[in-house]
Amino acid sequence: MKVAEPTIERLIQYYRLLTQMKEEGRKVVSSLQIGEMLGIKASQVRKDLSYFGEIGKRGVGYHVNRLCAHIENILASPKVWRVALAGVGNLGMALMAHAAFQSYKFEADALFDVDPEKVGHEIMGVHCWHIDDIAKVIDERNIEVLILAVPAEAGQSCVDKAAQSKSLKGILSFTPATVVVPERILFFRVDIFVELEKLLFFLKEQEKIR
Amino acid sequence: MKVAEPTIERLIQYYRLLTQMKEEGRKVVSSLQIGEMLGIKASQVRKDLSYFGEIGKRGVGYHVNRLCAHIENILASPKVWRVALAGVGNLGMALMAHAAFQSYKFEADALFDVDPEKVGHEIMGVHCWHIDDIAKVIDERNIEVLILAVPAEAGQSCVDKAAQSKSLKGILSFTPATVVVPERILFFRVDIFVELEKLLFFLKEQEKIR
Repeated sequence: MKVAEPTIERLIQYYRLLTQMKEEGRKVVSSLQIGEMLGIKASQVRKDLSYFGEIGKRGVGYHVNRLCAHIENILASPKVWRVALAGVGNLGMALMAHAAFQSYKFEADALFDVDPEKVGHEIMGVHCWHIDDIAKVIDERNIEVLILAVPAEAGQSCVDKAAQSKSLKGILSFTPATVVVPERILFFRVDIFVELEKLLFFLKEQEKIR
Repeated sequence: MKVAEPTIERLIQYYRLLTQMKEEGRKVVSSLQIGEMLGIKASQVRKDLSYFGEIGKRGVGYHVNRLCAHIENILASPKVWRVALAGVGNLGMALMAHAAFQSYKFEADALFDVDPEKVGHEIMGVHCWHIDDIAKVIDERNIEVLILAVPAEAGQSCVDKAAQSKSLKGILSFTPATVVVPERILFFRVDIFVELEKLLFFLKEQEKIR
């Protein structure tokens, strides 16, 4: 089963919403309600969920607990991924502390930076190496995922160095620069700059209309 | 001219890439090259740019400087937006220091938190108020944009409080929770959780194939 990226994005959103509802003690939810909470059409919600084998009851909807467990299973990790973080500045530190990174699905195993005050030390319990050693350390420790939080101007050279390792399989970038990544490595980015500029653009458009 | 969100997303990506190229002293670029750097089809690049009135020369491409200036003009801000940040934890601090936020397009004018060690103090040169005063302070200071970096469980209540203000026009959320926002307020989110889960899902799929 080859799943499209937007489908998985929506599935992750459903999962998070259902987790919230479960915590609030809610029992059932309709596709219309899910759609309204997430800004997705109810027909799209039904289509997505039936694609993954869940069909709601007409007039009742979906059982929150069951649907939540079902999606959790789809998103479940077959193992704990070993993860490295490159760039232990403000953003890197914030990421390490961020709720999204407190997941049982992976383990922060190595840090990389160029700052002599950080290299050779433990930060939040994880050892920090020099960026120049990134490929060697990644291979030695069998790390498969790299979180990139280096400054824009260091993005490409950091990716080039890391891509020399054999064990690296995926990169999640928070670096505000366009980088070229070898095709064998999965690459996703969280683009703060794009979202911010987008908001400002549509604010401007809205002012024009008023 | 009503522009679709994905079009603006691509335009911002072109702009950033062209800025990088300009800094590197590059003079011309083809739609194929832009497309390859960004993972977008060359035909889409040409369509987007011609939509905004730029047509490349066959066999030559686009002039980097001219195209860059043209897009800059489209994305230009009519004013400096007054911005507030709610949640001055690790993530909020990282955002304030992040390159994307060092923009001449807006000015950080107020901080909000619940931590008694922060409320009433200046942090990085900006005063911090209690979250409970958010609507009042936003209106008094004519703030139009809110950056949301509070913990997931505080997301909705913070949005509800801020939405009581009259001057607020847009929210950019970094909070890993689904929140409901009144329609008159523009809402975008940078979703670290979704991107991370997406990466892990596709890593898993890739392992299955191998």
